Amino acid sequence: VGGGGAAVLTLLSEFGERDGFVGVVKGVLLRGCPEARIIDLSHEVAPQDVMEGALVLASAVRYFPPRTIHLAVVDPCVGSGRRPLLVETDDYVLIGPDNGLLSLAAKASPIRKVIHLDRPQYFLATPSQTFHARDVFAPVAAHWARGVPSTDLGTTIDDFTRLELPAIRRIEGSIEGRMIHVDRFGNLICNIQQEDLRDFRAEDLSVSIGGVQIRGLSPHYAAVGEGKPLALWNSWGLLEVAVRNSSAARVLRVRSGDRVQVRVQGRRG
Amino acid sequence: VGGGGAAVLTLLSEFGERDGFVGVVKGVLLRGCPEARIIDLSHEVAPQDVMEGALVLASAVRYFPPRTIHLAVVDPCVGSGRRPLLVETDDYVLIGPDNGLLSLAAKASPIRKVIHLDRPQYFLATPSQTFHARDVFAPVAAHWARGVPSTDLGTTIDDFTRLELPAIRRIEGSIEGRMIHVDRFGNLICNIQQEDLRDFRAEDLSVSIGGVQIRGLSPHYAAVGEGKPLALWNSWGLLEVAVRNSSAARVLRVRSGDRVQVRVQGRRG
Amino acid sequence: VGGGGAAVLTLLSEFGERDGFVGVVKGVLLRGCPEARIIDLSHEVAPQDVMEGALVLASAVRYFPPRTIHLAVVDPCVGSGRRPLLVETDDYVLIGPDNGLLSLAAKASPIRKVIHLDRPQYFLATPSQTFHARDVFAPVAAHWARGVPSTDLGTTIDDFTRLELPAIRRIEGSIEGRMIHVDRFGNLICNIQQEDLRDFRAEDLSVSIGGVQIRGLSPHYAAVGEGKPLALWNSWGLLEVAVRNSSAARVLRVRSGDRVQVRVQGRRG
Repeated sequence: VGGGGAAVLTLLSEFGERDGFVGVVKGVLLRGCPEARIIDLSHEVAPQDVMEGALVLASAVRYFPPRTIHLAVVDPCVGSGRRPLLVETDDYVLIGPDNGLLSLAAKASPIRKVIHLDRPQYFLATPSQTFHARDVFAPVAAHWARGVPSTDLGTTIDDFTRLELPAIRRIEGSIEGRMIHVDRFGNLICNIQQEDLRDFRAEDLSVSIGGVQIRGLSPHYAAVGEGKPLALWNSWGLLEVAVRNSSAARVLRVRSGDRVQVRVQGRRG
Repeated sequence: VGGGGAAVLTLLSEFGERDGFVGVVKGVLLRGCPEARIIDLSHEVAPQDVMEGALVLASAVRYFPPRTIHLAVVDPCVGSGRRPLLVETDDYVLIGPDNGLLSLAAKASPIRKVIHLDRPQYFLATPSQTFHARDVFAPVAAHWARGVPSTDLGTTIDDFTRLELPAIRRIEGSIEGRMIHVDRFGNLICNIQQEDLRDFRAEDLSVSIGGVQIRGLSPHYAAVGEGKPLALWNSWGLLEVAVRNSSAARVLRVRSGDRVQVRVQGRRG
Repeated sequence: VGGGGAAVLTLLSEFGERDGFVGVVKGVLLRGCPEARIIDLSHEVAPQDVMEGALVLASAVRYFPPRTIHLAVVDPCVGSGRRPLLVETDDYVLIGPDNGLLSLAAKASPIRKVIHLDRPQYFLATPSQTFHARDVFAPVAAHWARGVPSTDLGTTIDDFTRLELPAIRRIEGSIEGRMIHVDRFGNLICNIQQEDLRDFRAEDLSVSIGGVQIRGLSPHYAAVGEGKPLALWNSWGLLEVAVRNSSAARVLRVRSGDRVQVRVQGRRG
């Protein structure tokens, strides 16, 4: 069953803040569910960058109240055949296009149902083919928030598009990863997770990136001198390279997709 | 009469997100009307660009709950003689400076009253001459939201400043328009409306812009190959030129104000 | 005692809008205090610019309802020794790192208590060392909002880090200040306050900046011709230099830290 009138809804999109697109989506949500609490996750996902949107969404879902609805729209194929989707998990509900955007977040809680949103009676009348956030996803989210069961909103399906982070490569004595996100500070976030290196001590690791070598992991950003590079486990649980009080992306001339190598220098911990 | 305590208020401005201007306006709104639901439309309207603000506002108003208050401030002449205004329509209320900003949105619903907000007892004490959003418009909006009738808030007037979209030109066999907005994606939006071309079939039209010719209109962005230009009716009901998964503004080197031409190539539908 | 369930909370940070950091902080706040009203002040404070954050916060606090909680995080030394702080004043509560960020806002209302937030039972379990907004400050703010007394949340202390605006210099017949903030419009805001010049008439003053001299203060931005420079008392009560319908920072090639001189040309008023 739905979340009741005081549902929390989050929004994530590639819409930016300039053109009123996000505000209009919120208008539709409030018209359908006047009590909804609406929280912005990000609207500055790079246009068409489904992976970036999937990462930001996955980093956020665990911090919201139970039964929160996460509406996410990075949707380069809006209006074409791609399916509109609702994924109900034990802890939250994900609504958005079936292009992988929801799939990283869907891993973090057991999936109850996957619904193909194919019932136009829950959309705005005469939906456009270019703005499904407004015309399809927001009305459906409002219906769910007000208690319409998922199975009424569409057809139960088994499969949906899943994205995977690029795999890390384990080469004798080292792990090779890739930068997958550059954050607002210019911090470089890669696909190496804390559990990938759980057998090793932080002080035995050495991180190579953009021509520099960083020995050991730091506990926080202020553990090295001004302008010096450091590596740490970040707040998403991923390996991050930063430059103190500066932008690692700019200083090290590294960007999303570039390689990073972690070598083990000491003995196993 | 006003909207009651749980009024929905939207905000549109040129204030940006850096300096706390928008937050302060919200503080004043909440002080005056603690139950107000406040939604941002855009605060990234280009500084002093009244037309851009008017377009974004007009595209949004129909999607909000009845009796929503839209507070809009793009206000290069703040503090000078320009009047502060409240326009009450059958469906919503518009509050902002009398410089045309409200006028495109005011077209979409029958106007009940136009009020010159000339009663300082509804402003903050000792209002500044540089920040009327905070000192004049927000307090008035909160009073209206709490039920103060429009006619108490100022003097009823008949006229106010109206903006018009630049007119299209019909030349034998073609229509000439102008680009009026470039959105976040670099999509180019012009002043040609769907009804301007209602006599013709989408497949008979040809759009010339920035040295390229686009044959036919597409139903959505994914209807052409990666990097190819397309034209479509966008979510505002206006003709838009896009480049798939890229920025039409950058690829075609077109900007706001540039001409676009639509030719009819086939016979009438 | 705390603010009750319907507390108003504001957020100010250096987090930007892209990475979901702000949304996650709001999720934690709503989990702890479902009725909280959350307002963004700014998340575009320049990374690590504690002074800019302190200025924006100080300009805003007086406009919010009584007992508002202001959560502010510009925190280059997160995870190191710097203390997490709660400052309770007669009018509002400030929560953030002890690096001066809260200190300008703390001047505007009598301080009741300063609390070192040293009780992990009020944090998220296993807080990170890189994201205290999410793991420390938001949970504490939610506890305060729900009525946990300040003195339960940590240890009362006497001192905390205070920032001061750079001092103005009074030289025979003139006052020298410094630009301390460039706002979204490119307006240049300096450290000279209205009371610093209370003995003089606006028309007797002359402002020198970036090689130009501006005679007299204007009441508002539209008091000079298009593209002309002007000086005025801005909405923060500080001396500001603007260029009508343009960016003073760009036109005058002035930036934060640059000097500005005010000379008195006429006789005292």
